Amino acid sequence: MTGIRFVTHARDGAARTGVLHTPRGDIRTPAFMPVGTAGTVKAMLPEMVRQAGADIVLGNTYHLMLRPGAKRVAKLGGLHEFMQWPRPILTDSGGFQVMSLSGLRELTEDGVTFQSHIDGSKHHLTPERSIEIQSDLGSDIIMVLDECTPFPATEDQAKSSMNLSMRWAERSKAAFGSRDSQALFGIVQGGVYGDLRRQSAEQLISIGFDGYAVGGLAVGEGQDLMFDVLDQTLPHLPADKPRYLMGVGKPGDIVGAVERGVDMFDCVLPTRSGRNGQAFTRNGTINLRNARHAEDSRPLDVESDCPAARDYSRAYLHHLVKSKEILASILLTWNNLAYYQSLMAGLRAAISDERLHEYVSEIKALWQAGDIALQ
Amino acid sequence: MTGIRFVTHARDGAARTGVLHTPRGDIRTPAFMPVGTAGTVKAMLPEMVRQAGADIVLGNTYHLMLRPGAKRVAKLGGLHEFMQWPRPILTDSGGFQVMSLSGLRELTEDGVTFQSHIDGSKHHLTPERSIEIQSDLGSDIIMVLDECTPFPATEDQAKSSMNLSMRWAERSKAAFGSRDSQALFGIVQGGVYGDLRRQSAEQLISIGFDGYAVGGLAVGEGQDLMFDVLDQTLPHLPADKPRYLMGVGKPGDIVGAVERGVDMFDCVLPTRSGRNGQAFTRNGTINLRNARHAEDSRPLDVESDCPAARDYSRAYLHHLVKSKEILASILLTWNNLAYYQSLMAGLRAAISDERLHEYVSEIKALWQAGDIALQ
Repeated sequence: MTGIRFVTHARDGAARTGVLHTPRGDIRTPAFMPVGTAGTVKAMLPEMVRQAGADIVLGNTYHLMLRPGAKRVAKLGGLHEFMQWPRPILTDSGGFQVMSLSGLRELTEDGVTFQSHIDGSKHHLTPERSIEIQSDLGSDIIMVLDECTPFPATEDQAKSSMNLSMRWAERSKAAFGSRDSQALFGIVQGGVYGDLRRQSAEQLISIGFDGYAVGGLAVGEGQDLMFDVLDQTLPHLPADKPRYLMGVGKPGDIVGAVERGVDMFDCVLPTRSGRNGQAFTRNGTINLRNARHAEDSRPLDVESDCPAARDYSRAYLHHLVKSKEILASILLTWNNLAYYQSLMAGLRAAISDERLHEYVSEIKALWQAGDIALQ
Repeated sequence: MTGIRFVTHARDGAARTGVLHTPRGDIRTPAFMPVGTAGTVKAMLPEMVRQAGADIVLGNTYHLMLRPGAKRVAKLGGLHEFMQWPRPILTDSGGFQVMSLSGLRELTEDGVTFQSHIDGSKHHLTPERSIEIQSDLGSDIIMVLDECTPFPATEDQAKSSMNLSMRWAERSKAAFGSRDSQALFGIVQGGVYGDLRRQSAEQLISIGFDGYAVGGLAVGEGQDLMFDVLDQTLPHLPADKPRYLMGVGKPGDIVGAVERGVDMFDCVLPTRSGRNGQAFTRNGTINLRNARHAEDSRPLDVESDCPAARDYSRAYLHHLVKSKEILASILLTWNNLAYYQSLMAGLRAAISDERLHEYVSEIKALWQAGDIALQ
C-alpha cells in the first residue's frame, strides 16, 4: 500500500478534480507540473515556482543521470534537498530524452544504449536502471521506462513498440516492488491506434500501477488526433487512479484533456516560451519582441496575483527582451507559470462548481479576443 | 537649496558614516550602489536588490539613452517606475561608457560624438545633453559629463583633460541650475597627479556641487596608486558633502577608500562575477566552476541573511554553473550583492563604534584564511 493516495472530490462530465496526497504534500488536480529539467525550473527560484501556484515539479532523469549524476544527488540528500524544492517531484524515466537528445542510440529488448549529449560518454538505460536512478534522486512519482512510439508509425510498428513498452513496464514494476512513500506510474502507448491503446491500458492495469500516464502524444499528431486518442484511451483507465498526459501542452490542449478526464500535465512551453519573449495571459499570448509594445505602459495582466504580470509594463518587458537581459527570462517565465497555474485553478474550481463547459467557453472567448489564440 | 541632505553621524579617523537623505529615501553611507546598467541590476528582481540591503542603484546613461531612449523612459514615468525601483537612483553621465563601449568617437570642446555599439547610429553627447538625459530618466543624483583621463597619461595630458572636464563641469552646473529634489555631483579628475587633483577639487568647489566624485581611478593604476591619489584628493573636498569613488571596486579597495573618507561606491564586480560563477563571501571568493565543490554540501555562508548564501549547497551552485543555468547567475549575483551590502553595513557599524581599525583587521584575517584574498 503506497503512501500516495488519490481522492476525487468532484466530477463534471468526464472531468474530475481532486487531490493526490503524497508524504511531501498535496497535489491539487488537475495539476500542471513545471519542468525542472536539470534540477531547476529554468530562471526561477523555487519560491517563485511555488508562489506561482505549483504543487509539484518534474525532474528529467536523462539530464540528472548525466549531470550531476544520480548517486551524487543521493549523496547530497536527494533532489528535493539539492534543488531546495521540498514538495513533490515526479521524474520521467529518461527514455524520451534519450531518444530526442542523445547521440548514437541502440535499442534492444534489454534497454537502450546511448551517448551523452554533454560529453559523448556511453550509458545504458534499462527499466531496472531507470527505477534505480529515480529512486536515488528521491522522486515521489516514478515513471516506467517506455519507448515513445514515433509519429507517424504504422500499426505494426506501433504494436511492436507498445509491446516492448509493456514488457518494460512489467520489469519496472518488479524492480520497483512495493513502496510506502513513492508511487510508480505506468505509461499507455499504442500510437494513434485505439485498439492498441486499449490493449496497452489493459496490460498496465493487470500489472497494477499507482497512476497511469498517456505517452507518445504531442509528438506532431495535432490536437484533433490527440483528443481522438484520448477519447479512445481514457475510458479504459481506472477512475480511481490519477491520469497523466505527458508533455502536454498548450493551454487549449490542457483544457481539452481536462474535459476528457486527465488529471496531470507537464510541459516546457511556459518556461521555454518565457525565455523566448512570449507571455501567456488570460487574453492570449503576447510576443514581447514586437515593437508595438515599446511604449505600452500596461502590465501583462493587471488582475494577476503574480508580480511579473502585474507590476511591470509591457514596454519594460519589451526593453528587457530586446536587451537580452536575464530579467526578461525571469519575469516572463514567472508570468507564464502563474498563468498556467491560474488556468488549472480555474479548471478545478469550474469542475467543483459543475460549470466546466461555461468556464471553458468564457476563457476561450477571451483567448480569441486577444492577440493570438491559445487553442 | 536641494532636497538632498547629507548628515554625518560618526567619524573614526578619516572615515565617516551618515545618511544621504533624498526625497526617494535615505542612503546609509558608506554606501555601495549595485549597477543597473540597462534598467535592471542584471539577473535580479528589484526586491532582491533591496533585500540584499541596497538603498540606491546606479543607472547607465549611455545604455539607457541608446535603448530604450531617455524620452521613452520619461514618457513611461521615469526610470524608477520603468524598472520598479522606487528608491534613489544615481545616473552616470554616459561619458565613461562612450569611451569604453562605443565605436568611432570624436572629442571636441563641445562634447563627444560617437556611434552606438548596438546599431551603429550616431549620437552627440554634451554636458548640457547629459544633464537633459539624466533629467528625463528622473535620476536622483546626476553626474556631470567629464573626460575620464586614461591611464597612463603624462602630466600635460592629464592637465589638459582635467581642464576640459572642469569647463564641462561649469556648463553642467549651469544646465542643471538649482533643483529641489535632485542632486548634481562634480567629478574630480587629474590622473595620478596630486597637484592636478587638488586644483580640480578646488575648481569644483568654487562651482559648487551637492557631492563630489573621484573619477579616473580603477582604470589599471593598481590599489596602491589609487590609495595614494585618494590621499592627495580627499583632504581637499568639503567634509560636509558626500564623496563618491566611481567604479570601485574589490572589497579591499572599498575598505581602504572608506578608511580614507569615501562615502559612496559603485562597481559591476559583484554582479558580473556572479554571472561568471564567482561568489564573494566573508571567507574570500569561491570559484564555483571548480570541481572541488561538486560534492560540497555546505552553503556559501551559513550565517548570511541572504537565501542564496544560506539555503543552497556549493555542490548545487557548482552544478548550476556547469549546466549554464540562469539560476546560477541569479543566486550568485544575489549572494554577491548581499555580501557587498553586509560589508558596507559592517563598515558603517564599525565607524559608529569607533572600531574601524579592528573591524578591518578582523575581516581581512578572514579573507586571508579563505580561498582567495579579496584585497
